[in-house]
Order: sequence, then structure tokens, then C-alpha cells
Amino acid sequence: MPARPTLDFWYDFASTYSYLSVMRIEELAEGAGVSIRWRPFLLGPIFAAQGWNNSPFNLFPAKGKYMWRDLERRCRKYDLPLKRPAPFPQNSLTAARIALAGRDAGWTPRFTRACFALQFGEGRSIQDEPVVVEALRQAGIDAQGALAASKSEEVKGRLKAETELAKSLGIFGAPAFVTQDGELFWGDDRLDDAIEWVAQ
Amino acid sequence: MPARPTLDFWYDFASTYSYLSVMRIEELAEGAGVSIRWRPFLLGPIFAAQGWNNSPFNLFPAKGKYMWRDLERRCRKYDLPLKRPAPFPQNSLTAARIALAGRDAGWTPRFTRACFALQFGEGRSIQDEPVVVEALRQAGIDAQGALAASKSEEVKGRLKAETELAKSLGIFGAPAFVTQDGELFWGDDRLDDAIEWVAQ
Repeated sequence: MPARPTLDFWYDFASTYSYLSVMRIEELAEGAGVSIRWRPFLLGPIFAAQGWNNSPFNLFPAKGKYMWRDLERRCRKYDLPLKRPAPFPQNSLTAARIALAGRDAGWTPRFTRACFALQFGEGRSIQDEPVVVEALRQAGIDAQGALAASKSEEVKGRLKAETELAKSLGIFGAPAFVTQDGELFWGDDRLDDAIEWVAQ
Repeated sequence: MPARPTLDFWYDFASTYSYLSVMRIEELAEGAGVSIRWRPFLLGPIFAAQGWNNSPFNLFPAKGKYMWRDLERRCRKYDLPLKRPAPFPQNSLTAARIALAGRDAGWTPRFTRACFALQFGEGRSIQDEPVVVEALRQAGIDAQGALAASKSEEVKGRLKAETELAKSLGIFGAPAFVTQDGELFWGDDRLDDAIEWVAQ
């Protein structure tokens, strides 16, 4: 049996448009016979390298105002609840480390969905440990074990390496999708195109 | 007979993604029974106000590299020729003034299409007067009359006012689409949604 075609899905837990893709990607990929590799990373260091010390949606107010309205329209279109978390953007370090701690055991997608649903569906602060613990529990994951693993040097190093790799792939925002032949697609608006590219 | 619903189409002659919308909008609007108001403006002053003295695609190289590749893919999808103009971005002042000079006579869309086709389809420099003259001739417009009108104080003032209005509407990039009830859509990716919004 030939291996299923694979698409790398790069996302940051603080990213609003990543919420849309996190909630949509599994069904789309399944329908197209594509496997998804979930690759959480941190946009912060990539933004910092181009001189931004905050989200562009905060740095550029007109863009930020538009994004929230656009996100509202997209969530309605995709039938997703939306409640703005405060502060925005959330510090996504803890959630990203936890997600990477679940890579080998395979629960990264489940945790990611639960975490995004709490953050953008209910407006909860994923910077707070009780909220990520709640996400772990909702996803049926041993919370104490996951938290401990997420604080290991191995997982910390893994996140740094993933973020470096994202940068070297030319990723400058999230979500991003990268095919095995190096084709980069940026934004939830390109999710369908990325899957189609890989499926063909 | 009730008035046809109307959508305002804001574009900058130097904007790559505006090329896609310029070439797509008429057919989409016609199919939906929507009238388009073509509103050329200048992004430069809006970028300058947020501290950018150049296109974000030049200021942020990863974003720029991605944009050209993405544009290539989109042009293939929409069956549009693509050749990169140099320099990029072009100074769009002359073309914008000419386009506004044609507003009352109704040839703004025709000139705009011819000008974008030369710039992004053939890689020609629309900063050079012979090229805009060629666009005018291709569109069947009296070139000398149009050029003279474009240099009038009235048209210069019109372009300044349009750019100010764009800014006050919250426009921060191009293309942008604004409905009569004040709904803003940004990017060629939202053209279909904008038309659907207005048609309903």
C-alpha cells in the first residue's frame, strides 16, 4: 500500500486564523486521503526578527479591526463559535510545548483542538495553566504527565528547532501549509488549495 | 425598476493582488447582478502613515518571496498571464489620476484593465507615459485628452480625496471591497464573498 500523501500544518496557538484551520483541516484532509502532520511553532521569534514586538493586528490597528470582523464572518460561515480572548495575543509558549510533548503518543491534534476551542470559542486564557489542563482533560490526556513532559529539556529544544525550521522554510505567518515538495501555502484561505496540491 | 446593488472596488495600480480582481470582477459582478464602482486610490500615503516607506513585500522579504509564488499559482488558476514588472512596486500616481479622469465618461474600468494587463501580464512599466498612452489607445480612449484631464487640479484633488476616504473607511491594503452598508472585505480572496454579501 503506498504511503498517504502528507501535508505539514504549521500553526501558532495565539493565531486567530489558525483557529479556523485547526477546526477544519481534519475533515478536509480525510476527504482527500491526505495525512496531516501537526507542527506547532512560535511566531514570536519570527515576528521579532523583522522588528515586530507584538502581533501585527495590534501594531497596525486598521488591520486588527478588520481581522476581528473578518474572523467573525468566517466563523459564521464555518459554524464555529467565536469569543475574543484577553489579552490578545495570548502567550502561546506553554500550549506549544504541551502540544509537542504529545507528538510521539499522537495526541497533538486532540489537545490542539480542545485548546483552540477554549481560547477562541469560549474566550479563555490559555496562558493560565488550569485552562491548558482543562484542554488536556477534555482531550482525554493524562494532564500531569503531559505537563511534566512539556517542561523537559527535550521538548523545549524540540520547539526551538521547529521554530527555526519554520523560519528556514520561509514561513512568516500562521497558519502555513508545506508540501513534501516544498510548496508553501499561507493562511486558512489557502488550506483547500494546499490539500488539493498534495492530493494530486 | 429597483437600483442594482452596488459594490465599491478600491484598488491601487501597483498592487499585485489587485491585478487578479481587476481581471475577475466584471464577470462575477455581472453574474450576480451587482454594479461595481471602480475606485482607484494610492496605498502609498496609507503605508507611510504606519511607518512603511515601501511595499510590505519588499520590506519583509519572506512575505515578498511568498507573494510572487502565490500570485503565480493564482494566475495559473485564473488563466491570467504573469510577468513581473520592474521596478516593483511601480509608482502608480499617473495611472491612478488617468483612471479618475475617466470616471464621468465611464472608461475607468476599460483603461484599468488595459493598464494592469500591460503591467502584470507583459511586465511593462506603467510609470512611463508611453505605456499608459498605449493602455489608453488599447481601450479606445482619446489619449491626449485623457492625459491633459489627468493633470488638472480637479483630478489631482479627486485622487487625494479618494485616498483620504479609503483611509477613513479603514482600508489598509488593496484590493478592498466596501458595501453600501459599510462592510469591508480585503484581498482578492474575499471578492466572491463581497459580491455575495451585496447580492443578497
